[in-house]
Amino acid sequence: MLSARDIARRVANGEASAQSILTECERRIDERDADLQAFAARPTSLEAGSGPLAGVACGVKDIIDTADLPTGMGSPIYAENQPRADAPIVMRLKAAGATVAGKTQTTAFAFLDPAPTHNPHDPSASPGGSSAGSAAAVAAGLVPLALGTQTGGSVIRPAAYCGTAAIKPSFGLLPTVGVKPFSWSLDTLGLMAASADDLGFALAILTDRPELDAEALALRGLRVGLCEQRFAEAPEAACGEALARIAEMLREAGAEVLTLDEPDELGEAFRAHGPLQDWEACQALAWEYATHREDLPPKLGAYLDAARATTPAAYDAAREATRRGAESAARWLGQVDIVLTHATPGEAPETLASTGDSRFNRLWTLLGTPCLTVPLARGPRGLPVSFQIVTGLGEDAKAIAAGKAIERLILMAA
Amino acid sequence: MLSARDIARRVANGEASAQSILTECERRIDERDADLQAFAARPTSLEAGSGPLAGVACGVKDIIDTADLPTGMGSPIYAENQPRADAPIVMRLKAAGATVAGKTQTTAFAFLDPAPTHNPHDPSASPGGSSAGSAAAVAAGLVPLALGTQTGGSVIRPAAYCGTAAIKPSFGLLPTVGVKPFSWSLDTLGLMAASADDLGFALAILTDRPELDAEALALRGLRVGLCEQRFAEAPEAACGEALARIAEMLREAGAEVLTLDEPDELGEAFRAHGPLQDWEACQALAWEYATHREDLPPKLGAYLDAARATTPAAYDAAREATRRGAESAARWLGQVDIVLTHATPGEAPETLASTGDSRFNRLWTLLGTPCLTVPLARGPRGLPVSFQIVTGLGEDAKAIAAGKAIERLILMAA
Repeated sequence: MLSARDIARRVANGEASAQSILTECERRIDERDADLQAFAARPTSLEAGSGPLAGVACGVKDIIDTADLPTGMGSPIYAENQPRADAPIVMRLKAAGATVAGKTQTTAFAFLDPAPTHNPHDPSASPGGSSAGSAAAVAAGLVPLALGTQTGGSVIRPAAYCGTAAIKPSFGLLPTVGVKPFSWSLDTLGLMAASADDLGFALAILTDRPELDAEALALRGLRVGLCEQRFAEAPEAACGEALARIAEMLREAGAEVLTLDEPDELGEAFRAHGPLQDWEACQALAWEYATHREDLPPKLGAYLDAARATTPAAYDAAREATRRGAESAARWLGQVDIVLTHATPGEAPETLASTGDSRFNRLWTLLGTPCLTVPLARGPRGLPVSFQIVTGLGEDAKAIAAGKAIERLILMAA
Repeated sequence: MLSARDIARRVANGEASAQSILTECERRIDERDADLQAFAARPTSLEAGSGPLAGVACGVKDIIDTADLPTGMGSPIYAENQPRADAPIVMRLKAAGATVAGKTQTTAFAFLDPAPTHNPHDPSASPGGSSAGSAAAVAAGLVPLALGTQTGGSVIRPAAYCGTAAIKPSFGLLPTVGVKPFSWSLDTLGLMAASADDLGFALAILTDRPELDAEALALRGLRVGLCEQRFAEAPEAACGEALARIAEMLREAGAEVLTLDEPDELGEAFRAHGPLQDWEACQALAWEYATHREDLPPKLGAYLDAARATTPAAYDAAREATRRGAESAARWLGQVDIVLTHATPGEAPETLASTGDSRFNRLWTLLGTPCLTVPLARGPRGLPVSFQIVTGLGEDAKAIAAGKAIERLILMAA
């Protein structure tokens, strides 16, 4: 994979020009993307900007508005849709000197019907969803950075399936203006990159918060809470083993690893994700559903058919369970420095017909807490398996600092 | 003014067809709008829908996306901008049988540079802003219902200046998807109509929450808190007198009227509105500012020039002050049944060069609490002066029930 920080350093040192690095990215995309199908639309050429991300090519999920590339939402309903404005997050990329390498494939409206993208590790395996193209493009070494969005598990899941690092930052840290909404209480922008180190580097620049480019945490004495997410169905053995393995590595490095109890409020909040999303998605996609029902893909169409039955009372109850869950989670997360939990239920599905399962991601999206994953190992089918780090709302720097420490540990053990 | 509930009743009774009522609205708009300038774009003809709002023509502020009418944002930057989809709130109107009478004039991007609209009571006076066309169209009797948005005071202020009723419901009650963002933590959809009774009728239908069409509250024994908003500069005499007058009427009707202390946290939250909006507006309008600075109107351009200096730390401090203010306000509002406070600092400015002042609206927008105004009286210049009702977050039904009781009291006293 390409490193954003390394590119920035080489450009700053004069080792390479930003333009030559972009031209090399372009060549790789030309070479690989006919097979990989990570991109939905690309500019005619990549031109270098100026700033700390000069030379950094970035994939932009195709539900994010761009003024000079069409924004198709993964759906024929938005064929040739050309937004007037760039979304604020795209403007931040450009202001920092990054170059939009293209729009990356998304499932239709970021729901569950698969995008055409393949998993770079196995062309017959799912790259996950909904930010499929962004994860695959980073994992295949086509770009060092990509934007995704997560409403259930759409940043962390594809990143873990494809074997990249990713962060879903605290809710609201990155502005979702100009991003097609699915459920406005849940929709969160995130980043994919080669490493936690690169994520911290890019996120600090994009948010103008240098403290997010945090030093690695000391592992000795770090209080790490293991969370099985017992309110959700158990994972496959490979993911249970991955979590046990990283826990053991942390113990050996001097961390204090505890298995956490899970307050009832967390399970109640986990179950509230459904009705909350159902009610908001029916509002957010009201026009598409009422006027283009036949053009919606099967899973999304059937989902909205059912979700329409959600009542305002069920929505209010879900919001109340979310509020209680957030209060409980703040105390619960406060017991430890970081929480480690499953990122996915297993390796990527051995099919292009499913984007996998977001059950280990949904609670954290609902609570708005930072989630970060880094590549760990391969499962029995040879595909990536990993874990995720969770910290308290607003503790993005700590998630990054922990990710940097843990990825070094993984590297040293390899 | 036209009454939405009355129209619905006449259509339901067979006294008039929905189409004949719409044709009559269309005739009034044709007759008056060349002078009033309430509309930015109109359909070629108004066609009746079916449902509880059949025959109800509705003005839609021109920062709200419509699939069959251009959405100009009050700015040449969005000339001939044709969104693909209707915003969810527009879909709700249509699903209920209402007819979009046209896009109503807005200040550019809902900021302070005046729209071309005139005040129906005095063509040389401001209709207020930013939802100028919506307020003027309802006040002039062109339509019974209109959509506005409030980030500072852009629903309540123009309604009070033009002499209509209006509600800014609890933050998030109406979905802002498809509404051009200015400050996503503040932007709130609201309704203008002839009366609180009409507001309750329409809001209940648009939200699928019948309890919002609440019965009038009993005034005897009602605990009413008067709030001067002493953290803001004092109002003109006319508005001070209006608040004293409605308080006296309520006392005579048996209400218990108390003057409330104002906790420091409210003033701190009031002052947090500025940096919160500044930081978010710079993000939300990043593309317009970076690529079309010269096409921004003077107040907005200068505002963004200055707002760029806002730091993430100032934004975080503003969010923290908002959180403390919301906690304090929840307790403070709990002392009484409703709070009465100024809606505006005076009558509408006697100029088309200013949209007036939102200082008595901004705190409540920040806190997300329901605000409702009904017409009360005329000031020394013959223009409307009024007050607003504030209730706790989520207590929209109580705001409507109080508005209905108070508007009856005003009617009986007239």
